[in-house]
Amino acid sequence: MNILRVNVAEGTTRLESLGAGRRHYGGRLLTSWTVANEVPPLCHPLGPHNKLILACGLFAGWPACPCSGRLSAGCKSPLTGTIKEANAGGDAGTNLGRLGLRSIVLEGLPPGDTWRVLHLSADGARLDDAAGLVGLNNYDLVERARGKYGQKASIVSIGRAGEQRLGAASIAVTSAEGAPSRHCGRGGVGAVMGAKQIKAVVIDEAAGNGMEPADPAAFRERCAEWARELRSAREVLREYGTANLVLPINEVGGLATRNFSDGRFEGAERISGERMRELMDERGGAHGQRCMAGCPIQCANRYHSADGTVTDDVEFESIVLLGSNCGIDDFDGLARLERMCDDIGLDTIEVGGALGVAMEGGVLPFGDVAGAAALLRQVTEGTMAGKLIASGAATVARVLGVRRVPASKGQGLSAYDPRGLKGMGVAYATSPMGADHTAGPAIPNRPGLTPLELDPVLAQDKDKLSFDLQVMTGALDLLGVCMFTGPVIAGMGKWAGILSAMLGEEWTPQQLMEEAERMLALEHDFNRRAGFSEVDDRLPEHFSEEPLPPTGSVFDVPGEALDRVTSGYTVAERLADRPAEA
Amino acid sequence: MNILRVNVAEGTTRLESLGAGRRHYGGRLLTSWTVANEVPPLCHPLGPHNKLILACGLFAGWPACPCSGRLSAGCKSPLTGTIKEANAGGDAGTNLGRLGLRSIVLEGLPPGDTWRVLHLSADGARLDDAAGLVGLNNYDLVERARGKYGQKASIVSIGRAGEQRLGAASIAVTSAEGAPSRHCGRGGVGAVMGAKQIKAVVIDEAAGNGMEPADPAAFRERCAEWARELRSAREVLREYGTANLVLPINEVGGLATRNFSDGRFEGAERISGERMRELMDERGGAHGQRCMAGCPIQCANRYHSADGTVTDDVEFESIVLLGSNCGIDDFDGLARLERMCDDIGLDTIEVGGALGVAMEGGVLPFGDVAGAAALLRQVTEGTMAGKLIASGAATVARVLGVRRVPASKGQGLSAYDPRGLKGMGVAYATSPMGADHTAGPAIPNRPGLTPLELDPVLAQDKDKLSFDLQVMTGALDLLGVCMFTGPVIAGMGKWAGILSAMLGEEWTPQQLMEEAERMLALEHDFNRRAGFSEVDDRLPEHFSEEPLPPTGSVFDVPGEALDRVTSGYTVAERLADRPAEA
Repeated sequence: MNILRVNVAEGTTRLESLGAGRRHYGGRLLTSWTVANEVPPLCHPLGPHNKLILACGLFAGWPACPCSGRLSAGCKSPLTGTIKEANAGGDAGTNLGRLGLRSIVLEGLPPGDTWRVLHLSADGARLDDAAGLVGLNNYDLVERARGKYGQKASIVSIGRAGEQRLGAASIAVTSAEGAPSRHCGRGGVGAVMGAKQIKAVVIDEAAGNGMEPADPAAFRERCAEWARELRSAREVLREYGTANLVLPINEVGGLATRNFSDGRFEGAERISGERMRELMDERGGAHGQRCMAGCPIQCANRYHSADGTVTDDVEFESIVLLGSNCGIDDFDGLARLERMCDDIGLDTIEVGGALGVAMEGGVLPFGDVAGAAALLRQVTEGTMAGKLIASGAATVARVLGVRRVPASKGQGLSAYDPRGLKGMGVAYATSPMGADHTAGPAIPNRPGLTPLELDPVLAQDKDKLSFDLQVMTGALDLLGVCMFTGPVIAGMGKWAGILSAMLGEEWTPQQLMEEAERMLALEHDFNRRAGFSEVDDRLPEHFSEEPLPPTGSVFDVPGEALDRVTSGYTVAERLADRPAEA
Repeated sequence: MNILRVNVAEGTTRLESLGAGRRHYGGRLLTSWTVANEVPPLCHPLGPHNKLILACGLFAGWPACPCSGRLSAGCKSPLTGTIKEANAGGDAGTNLGRLGLRSIVLEGLPPGDTWRVLHLSADGARLDDAAGLVGLNNYDLVERARGKYGQKASIVSIGRAGEQRLGAASIAVTSAEGAPSRHCGRGGVGAVMGAKQIKAVVIDEAAGNGMEPADPAAFRERCAEWARELRSAREVLREYGTANLVLPINEVGGLATRNFSDGRFEGAERISGERMRELMDERGGAHGQRCMAGCPIQCANRYHSADGTVTDDVEFESIVLLGSNCGIDDFDGLARLERMCDDIGLDTIEVGGALGVAMEGGVLPFGDVAGAAALLRQVTEGTMAGKLIASGAATVARVLGVRRVPASKGQGLSAYDPRGLKGMGVAYATSPMGADHTAGPAIPNRPGLTPLELDPVLAQDKDKLSFDLQVMTGALDLLGVCMFTGPVIAGMGKWAGILSAMLGEEWTPQQLMEEAERMLALEHDFNRRAGFSEVDDRLPEHFSEEPLPPTGSVFDVPGEALDRVTSGYTVAERLADRPAEA
């Protein structure tokens, strides 16, 4: 009995079992499988037929198993109309696993204006009235909820954006450090939680571990070895966080700048990971933090602005979308914007993209931190301008008549310009999730790539690269583990070994990747039934026509190559073709 | 040499010929044929690859030929992404035909911020600087332009909405009575004109007639006979205008009320054609006006509000969308809103739908005329709220999180609730234009319908009815003549006879309808290439699930029946099946 169904129309809960053949189902596989089987593809995303699934992976509850407590949120997306999964770190996945749950399925639509809190503990599940919490943003909400439910409870919540069912609304997950700073950000999953009128899911701190391994000794040994390797191999993330990428991506000429009109930002140094670290060291911030217990990578941080604002977990994507993409090189300013997004419950990528479009559309000038903050405050206030900005980049472009639309399938592009990093462009175009860097993170610093794949501005072979990456990140997503443990073949081997020890059955890397391949096929099939076709697997025309300074590159991966990603390759043939990793 | 191509990028014009096999191409056939052949289906509608085509029919220039001077505007729609044609009456089509032109094709995108006026006269075509006109709404623009170009010039123009490239922006055409009150309203055609930075097309008053008939005597005789028949058969339109439909549509329970939440409006009497006529008679307005020279139907009018505001051509759709759909029963108030829309260059249907959604979304209360007017003023001012309202019903619903979306393929529904008039619902769902009552006006007062077809709330046979109506209105649209001359089989016979006399070759009603059938296929094919499929030929789910008061009807035409409309019937088999008209 590891699936909790919550009928918000009737206010009832019910436990059921995932089924023997699906013991390994977790994270994105569990959310996508549920959506594909239970949600009518043409339903309104905010209506009674959509479902919101929160799922962890099968290793959740085991801090010894590195980075394995991620929480996935899945549904039909109000932003894109496609199937959607967005996942986050934090402490909720671990506590969910310890309670013996693999997923929570929120179903139906409540009558009237009743908002509730779903409370989970060893005593069971309960729906509480959310009075006193509705209308709050995430930081106040977490403080208030912890006062009521206990200081160590995990809180999964929405801010004002989710309450208003806005397309850029995220679901916040509290970090091991305590703040609501980890977000299932993309695709408006927070709007679906808002439609269900669940203000927060509170998960009591739970003792013990999660699912019992079939071979405990092998499981512990393989986890420990993998954690040691990750700790030594990911030092740069511990020292500079994900922000370490600002300068290299700027250097290759693919850093989203002023609404994707340039690939290099003159202020890149001032918003770099190196600069962030200097300011943290000067002012008493913190680097090398954990978002979940036991993480050996430790990419999280805490940043203090000169005015005393504390931002938990300043991340690369937020820095770029709220920074260079808005022409902002004031680190304190962009950190405050990120804190506001975390608080209001907004996807920093989607909102940064929307602000960039608004700046191009003349609503405010590039570089205007105060103007951007004023617009974000309007989201909390619920004005039409606030709701519009929080509806995402594509909608703002539509309303303002801006032709440079930084979106694919209605979802805003992340920090990498697809003309500067074409493998990323292929993922933006072909992922069943819309533009999503985590779906196929083709960053030119991975081991095991061919020289053609490594060159970010060559179009050649980027279809193969993206297929491989989409399958490997898919495998990580279905296990509910962090992307930063991969996506490389060696990592597939480690995870297949740990999975084998957990289940007491042999899983090869190829089998694991083939499970991800089936998951992708299931997701694409949902999208086909929802009205999407190959025609939607294309980037907006200006990326193919406007050369990107300073390299002059255009996105020139042909349509046939894009179609091969979704229907041309198989894991088996790609593994046979792939060179051995260093 | 009857096609004028205007390259707005280079500021050049060029004449070419339509080609012998296409002598009859006009109106919607000419715009759709040009779009289907020349516009890449995946291009950005506001970008350099879209084209805006303004076309008249082959009878244009002949006031003796009843209602034959309509002007079509076609392009890829920025509102829907589909192929689009919207047509209007007024005097421009007649003058275009007299200059020997069948269409104007605006191509490319101008560099920088240069706005121009396209001036057409017997001396040729010229692009003038639009200085002094940019920033004006339509009424001021027409006054200023006529001061410069002559008091009798036809003006085809955009207001502030078109300048801002907004999804509900219309193209205004001056009426024979002088005002910019006839609009190619739907699909954001005005936004495409704005993207081309053509503020107005000025067409000098021209003498003579249009194309020379092959058999002048038969042409004149058939036209005169048809005009006499129309004059006597359409008396209700002359007396009460299109507003005559308010009470009958309210009576069947299909009058769009408070964002399509009711089919009957308690204030229907106060916004009826009968009430309008009373107020006109009291206050010195006018009914029975012509929008174009020689019209025997005369449905146009002029309405004086108590405060002195003059609204030219108060129409049924505007009355319902700005009236009952917004809970407004103040005739003066809704007439002022219509005047504002005409002036700003806004589709009253799309904006009325958007206001209804905004009211349901809590932005302002139902019935708030002053609030609605304040929002429309914001369109002129270019605020974010103004731009949002003028982006149409579907976008406002998306931004406000309103689930009751009154749109199909992104275009707002017109005055008829599809649950109350299911034949209209089939047209909304399956027309290549998105929700468009003119594409298949299944109003239960046409001659020649079977009892099943006549019953508006029965689902049965509405697919057949809609196919027939879509073909017949398509035939009227390709001839560039008014919908109020049909769409009935008898009218097809009249028009086939007039067409035969003009061209000196025999056209049967079946051949004319088959030409429209091919046009529809061409349009559907463009949409398929633009990414639309059968899945898009469905209405939003709430129309199938929420019973409409007071009848309790839901839209229950099954998907298979909807698919038969686009790919199941042929004109030949439907003509064989159809009963003779009374």
